[in-house]
Amino acid sequence: MPRRDTAFLFDLDGTLVDSVYQHVLAWKEALDAEGVNLSVWRIHRRVGMSGGLFTHVLAGETGQTIDDAQRARLYEAHAAAFNRLHAQGAVKPLPGARELLAKLTERNIPWAIATSGQLRTAIHNLEALGVDPDKVPVVTRDGVRHAKPDPDLFLAAAARLGFDIQRALVVGDSVWDMLAAQRARALGIGLLSGGYGASELERAGAFRVYEDPADLLRHIDEVASRE
Amino acid sequence: MPRRDTAFLFDLDGTLVDSVYQHVLAWKEALDAEGVNLSVWRIHRRVGMSGGLFTHVLAGETGQTIDDAQRARLYEAHAAAFNRLHAQGAVKPLPGARELLAKLTERNIPWAIATSGQLRTAIHNLEALGVDPDKVPVVTRDGVRHAKPDPDLFLAAAARLGFDIQRALVVGDSVWDMLAAQRARALGIGLLSGGYGASELERAGAFRVYEDPADLLRHIDEVASRE
Repeated sequence: MPRRDTAFLFDLDGTLVDSVYQHVLAWKEALDAEGVNLSVWRIHRRVGMSGGLFTHVLAGETGQTIDDAQRARLYEAHAAAFNRLHAQGAVKPLPGARELLAKLTERNIPWAIATSGQLRTAIHNLEALGVDPDKVPVVTRDGVRHAKPDPDLFLAAAARLGFDIQRALVVGDSVWDMLAAQRARALGIGLLSGGYGASELERAGAFRVYEDPADLLRHIDEVASRE
Repeated sequence: MPRRDTAFLFDLDGTLVDSVYQHVLAWKEALDAEGVNLSVWRIHRRVGMSGGLFTHVLAGETGQTIDDAQRARLYEAHAAAFNRLHAQGAVKPLPGARELLAKLTERNIPWAIATSGQLRTAIHNLEALGVDPDKVPVVTRDGVRHAKPDPDLFLAAAARLGFDIQRALVVGDSVWDMLAAQRARALGIGLLSGGYGASELERAGAFRVYEDPADLLRHIDEVASRE
């Protein structure tokens, strides 16, 4: 029987899978093709937030309007570019990711995955990670009304586990994960493996920051009850 | 006659040209080909430092040794991958970069470029920027003994301008630029356009942080004498 004192709700890209930078350049390629000029670092700082919000925010930053047809083409082009990079074998689980998930399972600590990405790009990352979405709760963009920084994805993941969100830990690499965690009244754990700085994550509410899943695994007794 | 109250010494990648993320994935491709497994964010945080130091540090992080032949192959593979991305038109000047350089020239404020990159990759970025290395002092990795975070590149750039480094401003996007600036007793100005967080740059000694060259240009009177 699962232990009920805590549960882990994981973001996917940059948190369990080393895929943020490929997503960033896939978005860059898609945006360039639509004539939307945005510096790469600005894309990096928006990845992980809701795609709708992402295109809304970037339209504000560039002063260009993005219509529905253009948004659909952006999603298509991003997915195509990302999946091409994935097919080249460029995207792998982060160090310690498989071991961390195995340790939680071994300790009977419930865990789930909640990603702002769509299932069509997430599916390849889940495969790389060895996670079967028929066995583990995986909530994607397709399953909720609002993605991060709204709390819906993590709320849905907690509900799938039958777990009180206020006793859950949210693990993510981006500011949007940490804001969503706070909005859901969960505790946020930040990982540096998506390329944000530690202070950015702390200022967004991370109660603890680790380098990557391997570093979190080494320090797991700091955040979850000991055996 | 040039005004002598200050001079600007610019880093290139991530500071004037939007090329950091392409460098990062080019290094990732090169390292993967040599069987060196390093997370992308760790590569990101090392880009801009001396290539020799880079391979030394990453060997420490992975526990793998990098011999001279392997190091030469890494450099070759990185340059090939980066130049391929460049040929695809993916690398462009950052917003405001050309205008900032033009403003300095117009105000008779001396400026130079100092990059840890090699000339064979830098040359494409200089072209994109419209900088002619026969007219503007450009110091590359090839021209000094130690690259950043050693101060040699910025010292050489100041010498090329005939300017006292202690009255110069060093503009860069990475922690290595800011450390080199401090070691040279120059003032460091950090830009977010390479993907570091503001706190990382401030903790490395940046006396002021701006988003990108356009943002620095808007606030230039904060750091350089007014006309």
